[in-house]
Order: sequence, then C-alpha cells, then structure tokens
Amino acid sequence: MEVNPDLQMERDGATFDPIELTYIKDGGAKVTQRRRYIESLVCDDPDFQQEDPNFLSRDELYTSAVRRGVMIEKKILQLNITDAKEQYWFRDAAIRKRQGTAIALNNIMFVPTLIGQASEEQKRKWLPLATNLHIIGTFAQTELGHGTFVRGLETTSTYDPKAQEFVVHSPTLTSTKFWPGNLGKTVTHAIVMAQLITNGKHYGVHPFIVPLRSLENHMPLPGVTVGDIGPKMGFNSNDNGFLRLEHVRIPRDNMLMKHAQVLADGTYVKPPTNKLVYGTLVYARVGYLSACTDFLAMACTIVTRYSAVRRQSEMQPGAREAQILDYQSQQLKILPYIATTYAFYAVQRRSAEWYDRLQQQMATGNYSLLQKCHAVTAGLKGFVSYAMNSGIETCRLACGGHGYSHASGIPELYTYSTHLITAEGENTVMLLQTARYLIKCAGSALSGDVMSGQVPYLNEPIKEKCAIKSESDLLKLDILVDIYKHRAQRLVMEAAKKLHRDISEGQSQHNAWNNCHLQLLNAAMAHCHYITVSAFVGSVKDTKMSDSLKLVLTSLCQLYALYGIYQDSRDFMMDGYLSGHNITSITHHITSMLATLRPNAVALVDAFDIRDEILCSILGRYDGNVYENMYKWAKKSPLNKDEVHDSYYKYLRPFLRSQTSKL
Amino acid sequence: MEVNPDLQMERDGATFDPIELTYIKDGGAKVTQRRRYIESLVCDDPDFQQEDPNFLSRDELYTSAVRRGVMIEKKILQLNITDAKEQYWFRDAAIRKRQGTAIALNNIMFVPTLIGQASEEQKRKWLPLATNLHIIGTFAQTELGHGTFVRGLETTSTYDPKAQEFVVHSPTLTSTKFWPGNLGKTVTHAIVMAQLITNGKHYGVHPFIVPLRSLENHMPLPGVTVGDIGPKMGFNSNDNGFLRLEHVRIPRDNMLMKHAQVLADGTYVKPPTNKLVYGTLVYARVGYLSACTDFLAMACTIVTRYSAVRRQSEMQPGAREAQILDYQSQQLKILPYIATTYAFYAVQRRSAEWYDRLQQQMATGNYSLLQKCHAVTAGLKGFVSYAMNSGIETCRLACGGHGYSHASGIPELYTYSTHLITAEGENTVMLLQTARYLIKCAGSALSGDVMSGQVPYLNEPIKEKCAIKSESDLLKLDILVDIYKHRAQRLVMEAAKKLHRDISEGQSQHNAWNNCHLQLLNAAMAHCHYITVSAFVGSVKDTKMSDSLKLVLTSLCQLYALYGIYQDSRDFMMDGYLSGHNITSITHHITSMLATLRPNAVALVDAFDIRDEILCSILGRYDGNVYENMYKWAKKSPLNKDEVHDSYYKYLRPFLRSQTSKL
Repeated sequence: MEVNPDLQMERDGATFDPIELTYIKDGGAKVTQRRRYIESLVCDDPDFQQEDPNFLSRDELYTSAVRRGVMIEKKILQLNITDAKEQYWFRDAAIRKRQGTAIALNNIMFVPTLIGQASEEQKRKWLPLATNLHIIGTFAQTELGHGTFVRGLETTSTYDPKAQEFVVHSPTLTSTKFWPGNLGKTVTHAIVMAQLITNGKHYGVHPFIVPLRSLENHMPLPGVTVGDIGPKMGFNSNDNGFLRLEHVRIPRDNMLMKHAQVLADGTYVKPPTNKLVYGTLVYARVGYLSACTDFLAMACTIVTRYSAVRRQSEMQPGAREAQILDYQSQQLKILPYIATTYAFYAVQRRSAEWYDRLQQQMATGNYSLLQKCHAVTAGLKGFVSYAMNSGIETCRLACGGHGYSHASGIPELYTYSTHLITAEGENTVMLLQTARYLIKCAGSALSGDVMSGQVPYLNEPIKEKCAIKSESDLLKLDILVDIYKHRAQRLVMEAAKKLHRDISEGQSQHNAWNNCHLQLLNAAMAHCHYITVSAFVGSVKDTKMSDSLKLVLTSLCQLYALYGIYQDSRDFMMDGYLSGHNITSITHHITSMLATLRPNAVALVDAFDIRDEILCSILGRYDGNVYENMYKWAKKSPLNKDEVHDSYYKYLRPFLRSQTSKL
Repeated sequence: MEVNPDLQMERDGATFDPIELTYIKDGGAKVTQRRRYIESLVCDDPDFQQEDPNFLSRDELYTSAVRRGVMIEKKILQLNITDAKEQYWFRDAAIRKRQGTAIALNNIMFVPTLIGQASEEQKRKWLPLATNLHIIGTFAQTELGHGTFVRGLETTSTYDPKAQEFVVHSPTLTSTKFWPGNLGKTVTHAIVMAQLITNGKHYGVHPFIVPLRSLENHMPLPGVTVGDIGPKMGFNSNDNGFLRLEHVRIPRDNMLMKHAQVLADGTYVKPPTNKLVYGTLVYARVGYLSACTDFLAMACTIVTRYSAVRRQSEMQPGAREAQILDYQSQQLKILPYIATTYAFYAVQRRSAEWYDRLQQQMATGNYSLLQKCHAVTAGLKGFVSYAMNSGIETCRLACGGHGYSHASGIPELYTYSTHLITAEGENTVMLLQTARYLIKCAGSALSGDVMSGQVPYLNEPIKEKCAIKSESDLLKLDILVDIYKHRAQRLVMEAAKKLHRDISEGQSQHNAWNNCHLQLLNAAMAHCHYITVSAFVGSVKDTKMSDSLKLVLTSLCQLYALYGIYQDSRDFMMDGYLSGHNITSITHHITSMLATLRPNAVALVDAFDIRDEILCSILGRYDGNVYENMYKWAKKSPLNKDEVHDSYYKYLRPFLRSQTSKL
C-alpha cells in the first residue's frame, strides 16, 4: 500500500519511535503483541467482514448486531478465549468499539449482577444458563420517569406468601422501564430493579430475575409488554427497550438473595453490608475512563492524519497550499487533545491500580478505600467524558466540511460516545458526589484530621503566590502539579466555607447545598483535573523510556497542564496565585510547545495503534489516501443505486412538466 | 388540551406576558400575527402532514424532501405568496426549520446568483426558467480537495473561440465538485465555479451555467458524472452531491457576464468592481445569524419546558421529588443560553439594519460600509454559530438520558445545525477575516486616523481599572458594555502589537500572522462579544415595553453579560482591569440572577412562540404531556412492527438451540 507522501514525510520526520509509546500505553510489549493478535483474529476473519453500517437502515443495523453478537460468542467459545481482558479486546474489535451487539448486556450487566448479587445456590442455577447462552439477559433499572435517583423507582415487587411468589408490576406510566440495552427485541430475561414490598412493608429497591420472552418462540410472556424505544442520536444497532409488567408472578427464588433475603413466610432479612454494590460501580467507571480515552484517541488519529494530508490556502503568497497541520489555529485544536488523550491513559492506568488495591482490600473485609475510590472515579467519569465529548467534536470540526460526512467516521464516534455523559450516572450528579466527599474531607481536615489518599492537600496551608523564580519555572512538571493542587485546595476549601456560612446564616442544609452547586461542581472538576495532571506527570517521570521519547512526552505533559491553566485561568488568578504576567508567559509557552510538538503529531497518534478496520474512517486511513477513497465511498451511497431516483417519476417529473406546460 | 400541572404552575407564576416579548422579538405585533398566519397555512394543511422523519430510511427521507419541495413551490404559487419574508416563513415552517427540500438550493443559491451575476440578457433567458421551475438549479463551488480557499479550485473552463464554447472539465480527482446541495439526484443545472482560461491565459474563478441532466428523462448528460455523496451526520434528506465533468461543452453565453466577460474572440474583459459579490455574502451571513438563533431558541424551549415537568431526586429528604429546574446546576445550564438567545436576536436585528443601510448605500455606488459589514458579519457568523452549537448540546445533555432519544428532537436539531459552523466559510477562517480587518483598523488608529463604525474604541486610551464605585455597579448595563469594550480594545491592540513586534524581529509577515492565530482569534471573538452585548443592552434600553417586561429583560441582559465575563475571566483579569474580588462579586450576582429569573424561565421560552409542529419534540411539547407521548412514540418504532424480529429466526434461535443442545 502506497502511503500518501505528505503523511510519509511526517512519519520520516518524527523524533521518536511510536511503537515504544504504544508499549507504554498498553502496559508492555507483550500486552501490545497479544492485543494485536486478538484483534487480528477478528479483523482478518471473513466472518467478521461487514457491510458499511453507514449504508444500513435501522432495521438492518439491528439485524447486523444480532448476527455479530452470535458470531462473537460462537468464536470466543471456539477459540477458547477465556481471559477477561482478551475477551474484551475481541468483542471490542468485533464491534469496532462502537457498534452494538445484541448480546452485549448479558455479558456486561446480567452475568456480573448475578455474580455480585445472587446467592451461591442461585449462581449454580443461573450462571451456566447465562454464560452458555441458553438464555439472554439484561439489567432493567431506569424508568420513563426515573433515572439516576434510584430510590425513586416505581416498579413494585410484592411478595405473596401463600403462593411463595413475587408479583412484579408497573403501577404507573412513569414506572415503565425505559432504556435498558438489548431489552426491546433480544433478551429472554431481565434483572428488574423494583421496590420490594413484603408483609405490607416497603424495603426499597431490590433485584429480581424476570423471564420476559418464551424460550420456545420468543413471544413476550403473559403480562409482559416489551419493545424497542425508537431511534436515538447514536447506537442505533442497540434495541434499547421499554418494559411494562402487569402483575407478573415469579418464584420467590427469583429475587437475588446474596445480600438481602425474603424468607418463605415473607420475613425480610437485612443485608449485613451494601457496600459491595459500590465496588461494582467503581469497576464500571474505570472501564468508562478507558472507553472515553479510546474514543478521543480515535478522533485525534483521524484529524491529525487528515491535517497532514489536507492542503488548503497559501501561507506564503504563490507558494504551494500548506498542510493544514501547519496553521497555528489547527495545532491549537488538535495538539491539546492529543496531550489530553495521553493524560487520560495515565489517569486511567492509575484508577485501575486503585481498583486492584480496593479489590484486594475488600477481599479481606476491609472497606476503608471504598468511599475514596468511589468518590474519585465518579468525578473522573464526569471530568473525562466531558473532555472526550468536546474533544471529539473539536476534532470533527477541525476536519472542515468532510468531518460532517460519515466517511470521516467522526460523526458516529461522537453520536455514539456522547451517551457516556448521561449513562450510568449523569455527569452533574457524579461530580456532585465527588464534591460531597471532598466537602466531608474538608470538614475533617478543618477539625484537625490528617487526610490521606488524594486529599492530603486539605491539610496544607494555602499559599498566596506560586513559588516560581522565573517564568521558565512554569514549565517544571512539579510546579505544574503544585499549581493544580493549589487550585483544588482553594476551591474545595472555599466551597466548604461558603456552605458553612450559608447554613450558619440560616439556610437549611439542603438549600445551602443547592445554592452552592456552582462552587461545588467547580471544586470537583478542579480536584479531578489535579488528579489527572498528577497522574500524567507521574507516568512521564516514573516510566522507563528512551531519551527521545521522554523529551516528547515531557512537552506533551507540559502542554496538557499549561493549556488547562490557560483555559481555566480564572481559577488560578482569582486569589492572585498566578498573575496576569504568568498567564502571558503561559500563553507564550503554549504557542512554543505547539511548534515543538508539530513534527511529532502524526507519530503521536500512530502510537495509539488503532487498526484501520477499527478506526472506520476514510479521513484517518493509515495510508492517507483520502480523496480516492472518499470518492469510491460516495459512489456506493444507496441513493446512487439508480441513475434516476424513483421520486423523479413520482413527484419531480409531473411537477416540472406541469410548470413547463404553463409556458 | 390538558396542560401538565407543573407547566401550568410555571405559566401562572410568570411576572410578564410572553406575547409582549414575542412582538419585540418579531419586530411588532403585526409581524407576529402575519408569521402565525403563514405558519398556519402550512401546519394546518393536511398536504404538509408527514410521517415522523425519525422513522424513515435515508431513501425515504430523500423522497419526502422531493415531495415536500414540490408541494412547497406549488402552494406558494397557488396561494400567491410573493413577499420574500413570507415565502421564507412558509418554507421554514414546511421544513420544520431543519428538514430538506430537494428544490431549496434553486431558491437560495441558483436564482440569487443569476440575479447578482448574470447580464440583463442572461437574466431574461434564465430567470423565468428557474423561478417557474422549468429547470432546477444549484451552485457548485466546493471541491473534494478545496473548500474555503476559492482561488485553489481546480475545475477549468477553457474557451474555444472556434466553436464559441467553453469546455468545462474536472482535471483531477481533487477537482471533483463535492457537497453542493440538491446536486446528487435532483437538479438539472448547476452554476459551476471554474478557473477561466481564454487565449491561453488564466483569469481566476468565474461562474458558468452547466446543464447536468436531461429535461426529457433526467439522465446525466454526456460527460457528466453526478451522484449523492452518502450519509452525513445530519441533513440526510438533502442529496448533497458530487460532480465530475469530462470536457463538457457549453455555449459562450453560459458564462455569467454581468461583471467579467469573455468576448466572442476570447478577449477577457475585466469587471469594473468585484465588490458586489461581498454584498451577497453579507446577506447570507445575516440569514445565518437568524437561523442559528432560531435553533438555539428551539433547544432552550425543549429543555426548559421539560425541566419544569421532570421531577428527580429529593431536594429535602422525604419531600416530593423536585422539578429539575429548581436545581442551581440545571439553571446554570439553561438560563445563560436563554439569555444568549435573546442577545443573538438583538445582534441579528442590528446586523439586518446594517445590511439595509449597506444596500441603500451600494445602490448609489458607494461601497464605504462594505468592508466593515463584511468583516463584522463574518466574525459574528463564527461567534454565534459556535455558541449555538455548544448551547444546543448543553440543552440536550441537560435533558438527561431522554435527550439522547430522537423523541426529544434535540439530536436532530444538533446534527442538522452544526453544519453551519463549516458551511459558507469555516468559522476559524471567518474569525480570522474579522481579525484582519481589526488589525488594519488598529494600524490606522495608531497612526492617528479617527475610526468609525464599531471600532471607535481603538482611538480611546486603554483604562487600567474598571471604573466602579461598588460591586453592585457591575450590574449596570453601561458598565457591562464598557467592560466588553475594554477587553476588545486591549486584545485587538495587543495582537496588533505582537504582530508588529514579531515582524520587526525578523519574521516574515505570513509567518508572524500564522504564529499569532491564538491572539487574533481571541481578539475577533472579543470584538464580536462586545458587539453582541452592546446590541442586547441597546435593545433593552431603547425598546418600548411594560415595566414588568423591562425588569425581566434587564436581568436577562445582566446575566448574559456577567456570565460571559465569568466564563472568559482571563481576558478581563489579565491586565488587572477586573480584580479577583470583582469576579467573586460577579459569581455572586450570577447565582442571584439565576434565582431571580427561574420563575420566568418557561414564560421566556414560550415567548419564542414556536409551534409544536415546528418544534418536533416530545420533551418540549407546549402541553407538557411528556411521558404518555414518549411511550406512544416508542411503540411506533419500526422495530416493533412484529413482536418477534426476523433476526430471531435467522440468527438468534439457531444459536440458542445449538447452545442448549450442548447441555
């Protein structure tokens, strides 16, 4: 394959070897090699060849998701891929990271919930059915009228001790389950979250296995109304569903009873701890960080390669049109997001380490890390997914007009990934959870407790001025971490004080909290930003690498930190910690850094190591042969099936003729 | 129709009458009444009833665009709607502001270009054909490899004096015309922008009428390869097309010759002025401002009404779940964008006035206003469309999960309107044009010229500190205008000085310009922001209205200005013009303003006066009956046609059975 000469020139001019960076990103050469091998099992397998999903109708998209889901599970069993990470790579490659499989929720939610919440006996019954796909399950929590606030769910599950059955019911329109993945047309079973009522008393939301469709003919069972919720902004291969239950009876044993139990006579037995549920949430969020980072990496890959190939306008009059990557305004759009992607890989690796430590601890019955991990991963999910969202859109718009075409791949990347902002905990709610934890810590610190984890800064005195001797000190990584630490420290403390003041002035606790949302969200974002900068700096400093790579990554890390200060200058300047003069220097540093990093831009995105088959972008092709393939792709548009479209005969010709006859 | 009680409560609690504000927005009660009448001609006409476009395939979407296009033109002729504004309302209502018509470009581009660039004789020939729709035209400028930089276009039109014909040709792959609307399957003719070559010399880009499809059978004419470019992020009812021309011959007379001419012997006659082309650009951009503002108004309407209806979480423990509009974090997302929408209506009205004045002037052969108008509308197009884009997305995300469903209407609003950022001049390029003008003005001002129009501030001395006596002065509208003026003044002057310094230190003019993009873009945005704040303040102060409305609009105007300062604090603080203490006060003012405006939120969006048929949103319905209609809509999803989807028989059942048989 002949590579576009402009792109080849970029690769030849890079000052480091991208594969070294790929190994770091993946966590070692062996991991990279294994990942590539697993991806090749999918990408080189004709059974996974697919029609361009851009040319399919919704119905065809869903059909392909069913076909793909079945194929994935067959192959995983055939190839005997048993490692969870490798299964993930396999599925991820098969869905090109962003197309649905109709059996996804069975693996992502149904089986893990069984593992986490079923008793040993229940596991023996249900797990083989689910993992061997005799049944297909999903997890049904969200309702038409109820989302993040789980306590507000309306579906009821009332115990009938005579029959030893639960009666699961949707008492109102707003209690209709809405959104669960694969629910509409695919699954046979769901774990339904419902308000438990037994012996006339309410015990809150608990999980119940409810069979939905006949295993004989797939028809909805009596009392079950189920269907697809209709087209969405993206992810249209997924049959997100609605579900209404009309007094549906299930055996008592279908309530998952690892924690709480309902005995045969209807007695409710309280769970010893409900903390384990939070462990699953932490795990899910660490996964989200990784997904968000991959999506941003894909968008950066597309826009950077295209910006090397695309030539537009004369920078010097009469000269050849310039590569758009040479314009400072274009570099400003792209390079900070490449830096952001590497920062997110670093913080994602760090979060995974926390989760591992948490798991080890929890296995010994010690939950002391749980609250911290829960708080920081909730906020990071918000912080990272917001940045991903605006990053992908910035990359798309930086592709100019062609970024609007599905040939670029970025529209789908955007419309798909943006659901991560609202799914599994809406971002504002997530960030407010982090804020609640930080405020609690601030209170402890103010009353003299020594803080650990990510918040020992709350014990430190707040400095008035950033301790730099010269403007070039602003490039030092430790100083940059300090700057972000100071900002988090100040904003958390000020939010805590404002809350305290408002309450002491007579506002109720809840009104004061609500009236402080602006400050609380700011503080939570600042904390997550600090964690991210510090993880990135840590990874650049502590990872063994060649000098040439270290030089590049150091610049990238500086750019990430400096650009963040530039964008959020208010927070750093308000108390005089940084001066206007400092910000001028930072602006200057940023523009120098853009020029420094420009020659390595393509190598930096090549290092993400995303196969063309997974990238699904004509603008982002590894070989840079953009225009010939755009044209080829356009010709395949289904509207071009016939030279003259049917609507001509039906509407256009009669009209044109009637107009002409008036002559 | 029964209105949701929560929404009714909002309307009952408003402190002003929305219709008064509607009249101001529209420019008078008579305009509103006429607009409503024209809209009713469409919305109440069964011929314009349509299937929900969300449930249609691309092919069906295009077919509906052809049908709609024909219907619109028939009815406009039947009803004898001749006023341009009223035709616009009619078409706008018929396309629900965002669905295509296959005949749109004929009216928007083909006819206006004929009017602007055809000679009187040519007009006599072509205008009746185009306006009476014996032919359908479009405008083909953009090429696969060439966008905003028009001089780089590659299509050639070479004069053959023997035959007295032009030979129009696509010499390279990258010269393929790409993107023109309605080009793919609909139009019969295009005005093709091509490099004129006569007597062996190149004369730059000129317009040529090229017949593309047979008027007999709609087949492409010899040498013409034309088709649809494939699916896009939005606007999929439009057959944006590609076009390759293989030595296609057209009569000499098909070059539009109002300005430049090619005589029979091939002699090129230069145009006396090419300034008139810019007049059309100004007109187009004023139209863009209006479209962007309407889209933002629609998104604000949807999220605000839904936030009154949606109840989620307990603000007080044990209390009824709160309307999400009551959360400060939700108000922070919505109210600044409602304010922005009204600010944009004000600046759009002001731009329309400039255009009127410009037209009157140009009619007398005086072009002195042209450059100014061109410069400011280019930047405003960028400034306004960026804010619209992030505003619509913020509104969508503020709808939570349901915002992701097409039932909300916002995804389509977003994926459609976002094309305005790149179309008709990519925003970065537009803003840099404004910057170029501002830098030129700064140079003149520095050399002592007295500046007029929007830039007399360049003659004023730069103040060191904002002249306020108390923190409440920051609420005074004149002071807010001054603050924005100061920022524009400082940023334009500093960019000019940096450029000058870099050049005097040895950088070439072009490198210096490129290395200054960050500062230039900032300066252009600051100028546009100043123009917008000042237009909004002007309209609040100068428009006659009731005291109750004036109170609300004053708060809204304060919120717009203060929130802008809060977001871009860096620019206002860097030189010490505003202090950290001022920003703290501004933050406090903003949160008070949110509480003040909250009770009028619904009335403020009701005043946009957008009919449900045009809004196309279940979440934004005027009656607030959201949930029952979400559920009804979901049931209509085409995937629900059969209880059991075909893919079950084809893929799922065989797989489930093969798995079960392994037991």
